[in-house]
Amino acid sequence: MPKVAATQSKKPESMKLRSPCPVAFMLDIMGDRWTLLVIRDLFFGRSRFKDFTASPEGIPTNILSNRLERLLKHGLAERIPTEDGGKRFAYYLTEKGRSLRPILEAMRDWGLKWETNTRVHFK
Amino acid sequence: MPKVAATQSKKPESMKLRSPCPVAFMLDIMGDRWTLLVIRDLFFGRSRFKDFTASPEGIPTNILSNRLERLLKHGLAERIPTEDGGKRFAYYLTEKGRSLRPILEAMRDWGLKWETNTRVHFK
Repeated sequence: MPKVAATQSKKPESMKLRSPCPVAFMLDIMGDRWTLLVIRDLFFGRSRFKDFTASPEGIPTNILSNRLERLLKHGLAERIPTEDGGKRFAYYLTEKGRSLRPILEAMRDWGLKWETNTRVHFK
Repeated sequence: MPKVAATQSKKPESMKLRSPCPVAFMLDIMGDRWTLLVIRDLFFGRSRFKDFTASPEGIPTNILSNRLERLLKHGLAERIPTEDGGKRFAYYLTEKGRSLRPILEAMRDWGLKWETNTRVHFK
């Protein structure tokens, strides 16, 4: 068991921007069908690889690996070795990641308003 | 010149949802690098095909055509034949599309906070 669970987050790399538009910047990192669902799960307190794969959308494991690496690369999440040894990690949002909350809340509100088959508690 | 500029929006089709999560529903429609930039441009008052292609991100025309069709399909935008005849259209947000404003504003605020090379007035 490690004495100190060392944080293994990376410094965000500088990015080539498509434009100076802040929305385009956000989409350069998260403009796909999956990344914001992983972030949603992190807000729900899910932290282990298997937790994310258990979500109802059934994220493919290769996509999940890629998206977790992306979150680390851009400083949205950090990872900490788990107590059970081996090479497993637990993932947590950084301040930069947590500050995505208003975006997710606005998306949630929009979805709830326009699609009657969605709901807040869906697991 | 047409006497009445008839609205040619379609009824939103019913979708197969990945899950009951409202965020996943939103991403099923807009989870890519481009769709929300077209919606951003519609909020800016851009309405013609050439207006969208003139934006600084340089959206490829085949992607733009696809995304405009998707906005019509999901009832986020409507199109109206332009006065200059021919087969040209002007695109406008519907109420469903306009209600995306809080999402775009939250994305803008997040981008401005975390990437110093972004700005609100970027054209």
